Amino acid sequence: MSKGNVIIGQSGGPTAVINSSLAGAIKAARLTGIEHIYGMHHGIEGFLREDIIDMDDYLTDLHDLSLLKRTPSSFLGTCRYKLPDADGHEALYEQIFTLLEKYDIRYFLYIGGNDSMDTVMKLADYAKAHHKFQHFVGIPKTIDNDLPVTDHCPGYGSAAKYVGTTMKELIRDNGSYGASKPRICVVEIMGRNAGWLTAASALAHDTDCSGPDLICLPERPFDPDDFLARTDAVVREKNCVVIAVSEGLRIADGTPVCNLGTNHAYVDAFGHQLLSGCSRILANRIGDELGYDTRAIEFSVMQRCAAHLASRTDLDEAYNAGFVAFEKAYSGANGIMVTMKVYSREPYVVSYEETDVHNVADIEKKVPDAWITEDGYGVTQDFIRYVEPLVHGAVTPYYAAGLPKHMSLLYNKRR
Amino acid sequence: MSKGNVIIGQSGGPTAVINSSLAGAIKAARLTGIEHIYGMHHGIEGFLREDIIDMDDYLTDLHDLSLLKRTPSSFLGTCRYKLPDADGHEALYEQIFTLLEKYDIRYFLYIGGNDSMDTVMKLADYAKAHHKFQHFVGIPKTIDNDLPVTDHCPGYGSAAKYVGTTMKELIRDNGSYGASKPRICVVEIMGRNAGWLTAASALAHDTDCSGPDLICLPERPFDPDDFLARTDAVVREKNCVVIAVSEGLRIADGTPVCNLGTNHAYVDAFGHQLLSGCSRILANRIGDELGYDTRAIEFSVMQRCAAHLASRTDLDEAYNAGFVAFEKAYSGANGIMVTMKVYSREPYVVSYEETDVHNVADIEKKVPDAWITEDGYGVTQDFIRYVEPLVHGAVTPYYAAGLPKHMSLLYNKRR
Repeated sequence: MSKGNVIIGQSGGPTAVINSSLAGAIKAARLTGIEHIYGMHHGIEGFLREDIIDMDDYLTDLHDLSLLKRTPSSFLGTCRYKLPDADGHEALYEQIFTLLEKYDIRYFLYIGGNDSMDTVMKLADYAKAHHKFQHFVGIPKTIDNDLPVTDHCPGYGSAAKYVGTTMKELIRDNGSYGASKPRICVVEIMGRNAGWLTAASALAHDTDCSGPDLICLPERPFDPDDFLARTDAVVREKNCVVIAVSEGLRIADGTPVCNLGTNHAYVDAFGHQLLSGCSRILANRIGDELGYDTRAIEFSVMQRCAAHLASRTDLDEAYNAGFVAFEKAYSGANGIMVTMKVYSREPYVVSYEETDVHNVADIEKKVPDAWITEDGYGVTQDFIRYVEPLVHGAVTPYYAAGLPKHMSLLYNKRR
Repeated sequence: MSKGNVIIGQSGGPTAVINSSLAGAIKAARLTGIEHIYGMHHGIEGFLREDIIDMDDYLTDLHDLSLLKRTPSSFLGTCRYKLPDADGHEALYEQIFTLLEKYDIRYFLYIGGNDSMDTVMKLADYAKAHHKFQHFVGIPKTIDNDLPVTDHCPGYGSAAKYVGTTMKELIRDNGSYGASKPRICVVEIMGRNAGWLTAASALAHDTDCSGPDLICLPERPFDPDDFLARTDAVVREKNCVVIAVSEGLRIADGTPVCNLGTNHAYVDAFGHQLLSGCSRILANRIGDELGYDTRAIEFSVMQRCAAHLASRTDLDEAYNAGFVAFEKAYSGANGIMVTMKVYSREPYVVSYEETDVHNVADIEKKVPDAWITEDGYGVTQDFIRYVEPLVHGAVTPYYAAGLPKHMSLLYNKRR
């Protein structure tokens, strides 16, 4: 009897280590002697178009898997497709299961965040309700670290290492001036509703670095006047100031800080509206109201694709989460997401477990209030103890001609 | 008889390897048994305030020097002070030489770019004209790579490695979408008048990566309409597009592209003018006129302080330039800048020579026209052959708790 085949998809925003989860799942599947390991090109959206990749066309040996682990962004391509509820969309669901049967796919692994787990949940629920035999398992992935149940998410550690390292380098750069007049950098970090990544900027603090002077998380309502007063106080104390802000800051009435500008329609020389981030809005206001030189900096997509600065711990955990996900699906699990449970942070002991995907789909985990300092402009040592093990260890890229090499779906087809 | 002492200063924008030059000069000075190695706190500006550092207070052993090499930004602090002409400012010059005599300083080394070499030139000229015995030697440093005579400048190789690597990671991130609709990233890279660093984005092109789709250097006048037409053509061909632009782009009449917005006064919710970079202006225009999703990205100061991604070649060359600068000053040279002459690019053979500082002060070297493609949207293989050896080799940071360690003037005083 055929063992059936496996298909793996990637969905949502890419990370530096999302392909390490793909590599782990592939490795585990190969160990079982399964015949075909398929990939969805651009997630479930591509799958619906029958855009399916045979991984053997790309990965012929262990070196290929190692290179895949070191490749940032979604090797298979990603999507932001929200699967509708089955009610009223039975035809769509039947289309999916017909395709699964056509390719003899028994195991469906999906690497992603909250929205992707929603897809896993809906497909698993449909399969159970309609007595289908396929198994659907989720592999957590998000730099936002906002999935519940799991201690943390693959992708977060590497993004946190990028944020901490780059913040430290920026603070050093900004501090090299400072003889003559104040200089303020406002650094914008990803995370619309959860401040996990912005909080990681506190890693820059050490015996050789002050760390960011103020850290503003979206978990607390943002008060622009209080922020300006705090900024002014810090500047009067030390001249060179670096402030970390979450892209998702909101004032008390819920208005995003980044909309305080765009609501009022910036118009450029061509008469077009200009969109701007909250770092620029805040840097601008500091400049105008306090009279200081400011610079707005966005870590932008660099914070989620800097594989050259990946955390070894994160890369290995992403790999293991993918590996375990296949093992669990192959052993009969359905409608679960792999989770990580940390039994000890020092020494660091982690194990790979599971949770019903209903416990995680569409639910966001925020930074606990107790880990934010009382004044709202910093994080506590408990947060540092939480995040530090996740950024440990470095990954050596495979260099050629001075630049890291990657695996590419477009360019590295082997056969 | 006393050998006299040496003082070293850092000036202008910091780089990832400017402290490697400082380390090299210190090592060379120590080998001579010279008594005091001083540093200017914030360059000549700090020196004029008698803000002088004894390097022995910070660097007690070889490990300290190795850590200093791995520390980005100006360890001593920097300045942007333009020394006035001696004519009419004799008192200022006499103040400088009085201070030099007070500290028995015979050798004055200054690490910087065009403006800093202007300082070296003026002091050396004054010394010669007034029969002073001090020696003034310049050590080249600039991520802009725009100093003449020398083949390239310390600091450029590491910034180029950052730009090439990060561009490659960004292209991979941007390409992971692309199933459904076009996505265009416009990436802004430093270099007001010279496009060396923007050109280095072409390093991302390899057998596993397309490289940036368009590269716009400030050496060519920028035509917004032609740019839009070219962008549209590329998007129609491949959906996911990444464009590298120099911050210094100007249209034919000389107006900087970044001013096309600010001239028309962006005003935010608070009624303040908003400054914006040319990437945002161009991304905005692509979005509005062509209807595509765009993202503006600035490599900002990250491109000049990413010591974690330094080029080994660049780090070593910066060190050697500092080392040789001291040797030359100690051997009697005056009014020169150390240069690098490349005898062969493959195998890479470089030697450290010198030029009269009059040949470099205030002179900018631009990307040769022949190295820009005829259509103005790319660079030639000759440029790649030029830049590639400069980004070779990686530097392992000294990690603790997952983040690189640095030397800090504020925090690492040893005695």
